[in-house]
Amino acid sequence: MNKFTLLIDCFDQKGIVNAVSGFISENNGNIIDSQQYSSGLTAHFFMRVLVDATKFNIKIEDLNSAFSSIAARFSMNFKFSHHTKKMAVLVSKYDHCLYDLLLRKQYGEINVEIPVIISNHLDLKHVATAFNIPFEYYPIEKISDSTKASYDSKLNQEAQIIKRLQELEIDFIALARYMQILTPQFINSYPYRIINVHHGFLPSFKGAKPYHQAYDKGVKIIGATAHYATEDLDMGPIIEQGVINIDHRDTVEDYISKGRDIEKQVLAKAIRAHAEDKIIVHDGKTLVFD
Amino acid sequence: MNKFTLLIDCFDQKGIVNAVSGFISENNGNIIDSQQYSSGLTAHFFMRVLVDATKFNIKIEDLNSAFSSIAARFSMNFKFSHHTKKMAVLVSKYDHCLYDLLLRKQYGEINVEIPVIISNHLDLKHVATAFNIPFEYYPIEKISDSTKASYDSKLNQEAQIIKRLQELEIDFIALARYMQILTPQFINSYPYRIINVHHGFLPSFKGAKPYHQAYDKGVKIIGATAHYATEDLDMGPIIEQGVINIDHRDTVEDYISKGRDIEKQVLAKAIRAHAEDKIIVHDGKTLVFD
Amino acid sequence: MNKFTLLIDCFDQKGIVNAVSGFISENNGNIIDSQQYSSGLTAHFFMRVLVDATKFNIKIEDLNSAFSSIAARFSMNFKFSHHTKKMAVLVSKYDHCLYDLLLRKQYGEINVEIPVIISNHLDLKHVATAFNIPFEYYPIEKISDSTKASYDSKLNQEAQIIKRLQELEIDFIALARYMQILTPQFINSYPYRIINVHHGFLPSFKGAKPYHQAYDKGVKIIGATAHYATEDLDMGPIIEQGVINIDHRDTVEDYISKGRDIEKQVLAKAIRAHAEDKIIVHDGKTLVFD
Amino acid sequence: MNKFTLLIDCFDQKGIVNAVSGFISENNGNIIDSQQYSSGLTAHFFMRVLVDATKFNIKIEDLNSAFSSIAARFSMNFKFSHHTKKMAVLVSKYDHCLYDLLLRKQYGEINVEIPVIISNHLDLKHVATAFNIPFEYYPIEKISDSTKASYDSKLNQEAQIIKRLQELEIDFIALARYMQILTPQFINSYPYRIINVHHGFLPSFKGAKPYHQAYDKGVKIIGATAHYATEDLDMGPIIEQGVINIDHRDTVEDYISKGRDIEKQVLAKAIRAHAEDKIIVHDGKTLVFD
Repeated sequence: MNKFTLLIDCFDQKGIVNAVSGFISENNGNIIDSQQYSSGLTAHFFMRVLVDATKFNIKIEDLNSAFSSIAARFSMNFKFSHHTKKMAVLVSKYDHCLYDLLLRKQYGEINVEIPVIISNHLDLKHVATAFNIPFEYYPIEKISDSTKASYDSKLNQEAQIIKRLQELEIDFIALARYMQILTPQFINSYPYRIINVHHGFLPSFKGAKPYHQAYDKGVKIIGATAHYATEDLDMGPIIEQGVINIDHRDTVEDYISKGRDIEKQVLAKAIRAHAEDKIIVHDGKTLVFD
Repeated sequence: MNKFTLLIDCFDQKGIVNAVSGFISENNGNIIDSQQYSSGLTAHFFMRVLVDATKFNIKIEDLNSAFSSIAARFSMNFKFSHHTKKMAVLVSKYDHCLYDLLLRKQYGEINVEIPVIISNHLDLKHVATAFNIPFEYYPIEKISDSTKASYDSKLNQEAQIIKRLQELEIDFIALARYMQILTPQFINSYPYRIINVHHGFLPSFKGAKPYHQAYDKGVKIIGATAHYATEDLDMGPIIEQGVINIDHRDTVEDYISKGRDIEKQVLAKAIRAHAEDKIIVHDGKTLVFD
Repeated sequence: MNKFTLLIDCFDQKGIVNAVSGFISENNGNIIDSQQYSSGLTAHFFMRVLVDATKFNIKIEDLNSAFSSIAARFSMNFKFSHHTKKMAVLVSKYDHCLYDLLLRKQYGEINVEIPVIISNHLDLKHVATAFNIPFEYYPIEKISDSTKASYDSKLNQEAQIIKRLQELEIDFIALARYMQILTPQFINSYPYRIINVHHGFLPSFKGAKPYHQAYDKGVKIIGATAHYATEDLDMGPIIEQGVINIDHRDTVEDYISKGRDIEKQVLAKAIRAHAEDKIIVHDGKTLVFD
Repeated sequence: MNKFTLLIDCFDQKGIVNAVSGFISENNGNIIDSQQYSSGLTAHFFMRVLVDATKFNIKIEDLNSAFSSIAARFSMNFKFSHHTKKMAVLVSKYDHCLYDLLLRKQYGEINVEIPVIISNHLDLKHVATAFNIPFEYYPIEKISDSTKASYDSKLNQEAQIIKRLQELEIDFIALARYMQILTPQFINSYPYRIINVHHGFLPSFKGAKPYHQAYDKGVKIIGATAHYATEDLDMGPIIEQGVINIDHRDTVEDYISKGRDIEKQVLAKAIRAHAEDKIIVHDGKTLVFD
């Protein structure tokens, strides 16, 4: 173990920083980065510490118990992280977010392992192949005589995917323009560990066809939003947002085209923050450390 | 008359540009700037022409009739403008938009006359005085034993203001954080000639306290919107929008503080566009030429 | 021929717009888009017209001669364009701009043909292959006992490339992080038809290692610049620039990482503008229509 | 004393955070905000701590000595700050930065006292008066038969200003578009305590008429830079930069007009950071905490 991250939140009290930094220095760790925030309004305290643990006295498996007395004293929520996270990417037919994630991973911008790319379509298999990442296909059957997906088939497909994600010990999931609404069974299997990108500036333009909604309204700026998926569609805690100017000459197709650039950027930023344990969800909102 | 502007919109047809440019060159005008846009989707055509009219053969008062045969041929909506517009500013207690407008006018960034600043409070009289602009005070009475405005008093106050605006031959009205909802009688006296600034990224966060709404939702970007006031509160055609990043450390007070910078900018841009006849409202949306 | 573009610049005179629009409507063309700009300072006039030529009376090969009398009357520079341009992409080892261009072409955002990707290294052959575009390798020999390129070898390599570009009837060239300084023989073979992206906010940080220069200077914003390559290194007419905020925590590696996003965006925008004949170079500067 | 700020920088070593947080908690202070940064490259450590000192055991006048043993152990540069800073504003004829600062102070966005506004011209006296701030006029004589300032007169003028600033116990100086180059005697009287705004995107366009330089170069984005004034003109440590897009239609006058918005914003941000003790100058560059 070379480094670990510690995320903390609790009611604001005197002596927290001193207790945490004492725990680290007494055990021969060195604080590389430390950020904290104290909400004046709610008197809640949030902290992220990144520790050089090359000479740390405590073993990984003992971290939680070693810290437990401090945590109890301040009634802390806390989480230690020390390994590179495993991220599954779910896609359908759009490739821009997928390419973006794979390239950023290759450049070292996003520190994750990607054991699998999962899709309900075969369209993007070639992209996975080009980047040497296993691609797995889990189709959803249509209702006979219809273009609608069968809900039974969907539940079954999700169950297979969840089983597979568990086998692969996936830590979190990126919905890289996955064009299916996940059912509660899936959402609740990975609470605050599924990151979706919505191509609307939430809370405006929830649901289907946000660019069409934006066009009809005549807004002058469009946006994209990365958020944790929750049961309440497009209403989960927002992690990152981005915007781009448009004008009267832009058609919905132009929105789609310009939107690609921000969709992939906000998704990548959100994933990066999650992968580096920089996000705390509190009261339905995120706190994202720099 | 040194210059005039011509705004046109009509069903898209062949020969419009040629007919318009012919009308101008045959009458000894010179096109300084010309912009056009043709909506492929709706086959509607929009055009703005700025003309050097130093040697123009046609008198101002004859422009409409001289152009009428061309307009009829293409079934055009059209508008000639040739004088500096008279803008009334309505304010309440916030001074940032007011200062901004007065300074931009002074710098020559906004080409308007401001014959009057009108308010339902006396707080900003000193600003008007410092810039040598008449300030007129039209209070609204409260309902007795209440902090609410009396609707009768409000209707009466608006009637007085409308009367005054007509006396002053006001062309359009800037609501520079005027903290009153205008009644339909006022709105309809100046259709598409009242510009409001809303401190929310519309259509998100309509109505009261948009920064509080944004804070509760946990968005990562806030915005401001300048739009034409219509009977449907905060839903009129959007002219200009601006945004600013915020993060978890920002309180509602920080939103208010950061928001001032964008509120005044979007209002000023919208006013500038209107003052220079760069806006056409079509189908409930604006087309704003550069 | 379905559409053509006409780019014009000349000394500003009365009647230009009317003459041009008359030429088009008389020959049964329809103006889809028209933009013009008249520089008050230098009295120079610029115009771009996009014409629906489905029923146009004049054949492609006769356009220049048919327009010549109007051009002569106003002493115009003018250029008609009617076919999709052929763009060669030159790369070395960095893949981000290449992927970006290939994907944007695939999405229909950039309307070009790409008959060849040329490189002095083999590193990016797999990318060309994945997108089914011919990849050609033109290495430069090192001076013996040195890591420096041999100038003779470079001249020879360039001569081969130029020959090949001519065979392929290439219209213009994108230097997508091609890590060689082109010699005058190459530059002058394609005047104002070679687009380079420099990873500095020109004119700051010309030459080698602009991110290192920016880091040493301690700027708070870094940028990238797309420009036409000229003999004067990194000093050719600027087409497009983009910026991104950085702070004290960012290392040169972070600049490189963040810079990728803007490098590819500015290059793509510049290429798009060139491909759509929206750029006029005048007096060492570009005018880029929207 | 309700709050104090502690700024620290030193060679990076283990135990710094623990020693500092221990000093604070042992003396009954509460850390409201803490930020730190460790430069991997240079192994230098930077820290800013904001402390609630309502119940702090140590008196203001004893802070330095009480902290001296910790400071010595780690060879720290350190600075405690506990009072609202006194800022002098130097102006000439442009009013936009001055209005902006006075309004932001009024809104509580910038926490400073402004005991005096000083100018070499009388043009902005009315602004100072409108905001009830003393205005003092220190003219510079011209060389006879010339429009140039006499250097002797300038040295004399500066000496008077310095004397006055010392009488008023001014902490730092804002050059709000003060159109004089300060001599070394002035600069060195307030090292890293004079904040200038330059209307160019430094290091591009140093010296006079940066907008004209930018126009001649044909850049597509212009900028403004707030920096500490040093003897090396326009080359002092950059604190804040801002940019704005321009295009071929913009004249130098438009640059000046658009530039006002960013000049005042970057100056205000830099002043705010300085006033809140968020800036450390190290190696000729600034580190600006959020």
